[in-house]
Amino acid sequence: MSYCTATYRIYDDKADFHKKAESIAVGMTVGTWTELPQIKQDEMRVHLGRVENVDVYDSPNGVSGERYADVAISYPDVNFTSDIPALIITVFGKISMDGKIKLLDLKLSDNFMRAYSGPKFGIQGVRELLGVPHRPLLMSIFKSVIGYDLDGLREQFMAQALGGVDLIKDDEILFENPLTPIEQRVKLCRQATEEAKHITGKELLYAVNLTGRTSTLKEQALRAIDAGASALLFNVLPYGFDVLQELSSDPDISVPIAAHPSLAGALYPSPHYGIAASLLLGKLMRVAGADLVLFPSPYGSVVMPREENLAIQRELVTSELAIRSSFPVPSAGIHPGLVPQIISDFGTDVVVNAGGGIHGHPNGASSGGRAFLQAIDASLNGVPLEQAAESLPELKAALDIWGGQK
Amino acid sequence: MSYCTATYRIYDDKADFHKKAESIAVGMTVGTWTELPQIKQDEMRVHLGRVENVDVYDSPNGVSGERYADVAISYPDVNFTSDIPALIITVFGKISMDGKIKLLDLKLSDNFMRAYSGPKFGIQGVRELLGVPHRPLLMSIFKSVIGYDLDGLREQFMAQALGGVDLIKDDEILFENPLTPIEQRVKLCRQATEEAKHITGKELLYAVNLTGRTSTLKEQALRAIDAGASALLFNVLPYGFDVLQELSSDPDISVPIAAHPSLAGALYPSPHYGIAASLLLGKLMRVAGADLVLFPSPYGSVVMPREENLAIQRELVTSELAIRSSFPVPSAGIHPGLVPQIISDFGTDVVVNAGGGIHGHPNGASSGGRAFLQAIDASLNGVPLEQAAESLPELKAALDIWGGQK
Repeated sequence: MSYCTATYRIYDDKADFHKKAESIAVGMTVGTWTELPQIKQDEMRVHLGRVENVDVYDSPNGVSGERYADVAISYPDVNFTSDIPALIITVFGKISMDGKIKLLDLKLSDNFMRAYSGPKFGIQGVRELLGVPHRPLLMSIFKSVIGYDLDGLREQFMAQALGGVDLIKDDEILFENPLTPIEQRVKLCRQATEEAKHITGKELLYAVNLTGRTSTLKEQALRAIDAGASALLFNVLPYGFDVLQELSSDPDISVPIAAHPSLAGALYPSPHYGIAASLLLGKLMRVAGADLVLFPSPYGSVVMPREENLAIQRELVTSELAIRSSFPVPSAGIHPGLVPQIISDFGTDVVVNAGGGIHGHPNGASSGGRAFLQAIDASLNGVPLEQAAESLPELKAALDIWGGQK
Repeated sequence: MSYCTATYRIYDDKADFHKKAESIAVGMTVGTWTELPQIKQDEMRVHLGRVENVDVYDSPNGVSGERYADVAISYPDVNFTSDIPALIITVFGKISMDGKIKLLDLKLSDNFMRAYSGPKFGIQGVRELLGVPHRPLLMSIFKSVIGYDLDGLREQFMAQALGGVDLIKDDEILFENPLTPIEQRVKLCRQATEEAKHITGKELLYAVNLTGRTSTLKEQALRAIDAGASALLFNVLPYGFDVLQELSSDPDISVPIAAHPSLAGALYPSPHYGIAASLLLGKLMRVAGADLVLFPSPYGSVVMPREENLAIQRELVTSELAIRSSFPVPSAGIHPGLVPQIISDFGTDVVVNAGGGIHGHPNGASSGGRAFLQAIDASLNGVPLEQAAESLPELKAALDIWGGQK
């Protein structure tokens, strides 16, 4: 017998949480139990959900003034197929609507995980493509994309590439459009990548945004790869995790996929409802095969408690899952002065992802990229940034604007 | 110039909401504005988002003790493609993560709606299939499905069909499984439908649950239809609205689609985050082409404020959208005594959807179905249920157990 286990936080002022847990375990599996004759119970037992644990927090703790319980329920694998929609419908379909209940975690059985090959590249694979074995990677974002033509995009791309960044990603709101159609965009950026490489000597991945109707995504990805795309950006949640899994597990999709957290804020921030960030943007993104996962950083204006950021990272890299790890990409509010803090928080297996922190550099985006690489280098060598900046004008200019770490 | 307009509720104790609105309108479209030279502004103006309205609620109102604003922002259609993922990524991608913000509504432009044919059948089409032009329809649900074989399912199906229900739907947690594979289930229930029709003289739609990997759904639907499926049930949210639209707009999918609200509770209930129920389960389900839409009723244990239930219904039937209307299916906690209330709340274009209220009838599911039809008939004729029940034993038994309306 094999089970997947869901952990929920359920809020209720008066409920008998043990009874509530039993009603979920029965209701979301066999439907009814105590009324069944013994012989039918024997037959149905393999399908019956099981309450694993109920921790009641009567004295308010965590969320002020509210009584809640953390409840773990196991669902027999035999009840559902090994796809993420079936898993979600089973563990959080109907009961997502049953009062204040949040899905905190899923423990996926070895049997269930057999259907998942995970990220095709993962941290190691992306490092190999770039020839960067150890240090944090640097990703940059276009400043503006909508309304720009190919020349405008190329100019922005080159400025970023010449700064020595490892990855450049499309903006997630750049859809198929007459000014910069995906194949032309890819070809142009591929040429620019080669040109920049002659100068920087560095490899560079450009994650092009996959968009449009669900049934056309694979074909679009293949066309982009054919045109020279070295990576894909994908807004996973508006399409569903299963679409990511179909793309990531497709042998013809031969480049890394970066998952954008678009729409995630509709699901994770409430203490009472939705899906915990560590599961939504951590475990499920990795299981579905994202090679890189963007999520709100603890440094920017986008609000996410620091422990949630770090919990996402843990899920992306933990060796508890027997699939490749995904590169954590904490995003928003990143400037060179934060690099020591980022490495201290996330380790070296992290992508430093910057928009304004690169484009806002007083000497332009190329200097912005160099300032980040200087900050990364100094941090890895244990040199305080202020000290390193004495001989590094790009880093000095960045620290003068944005300061060191808070 | 054509725009789609999103209305948000944003909570903040101190923010300048007008400034915040401007920053969204610019940030989620052209990226930067005031720094652009005049000539570039002229070029970019067609792409610029527009703040339509900002209503600040300084004196706490609605949600106690919190300051908030309802903010309407228009996004130029030219910025995104006419698919629901692009719409969602544009209006609620990144900013879903930007503090306490809930997406309340979307006004979709005629231009955007040109890509949407809406429900293929809608209320009228479903009524025509059933030959029931006016009265509320009656839907019933299997009592238990997991672990049952074809004989067990058939027995439950017949008991429901003989009670005269108009629709029977699969449980949403019934996935492809060796005991009751979809094609065999469809064939069997089709036979049972024909048998029951000889006795009841009534048409009956059976909504079979579409499950599995995203790219296989269409083919599974076609196989089911080929085997005699008269309707489909689909868990929309775990797959994304676009998948529903692809199915509903496919000319080969020649049967009505019922949308299940599975996972919706992760998105709509928080006052601070997510997507309002009327948009999520109302407008977007209809736009994506659901012929019937299930949502929590105001009568059951599933918690949804009554005005939200009615707001969903309004979006499903309003003539403001130039596409067919979708049948509202308020679900959970429905028994025959509630029928007058349901009709008073939702009108006659409603599907009365019952599980326990049919199976829990003391004389079995067939009597349960008959009790509902008797209640519907009496209500439409203005006869109080208690009075009608005097000559109708099934209805009497139901009222004796569950009582009249609360």
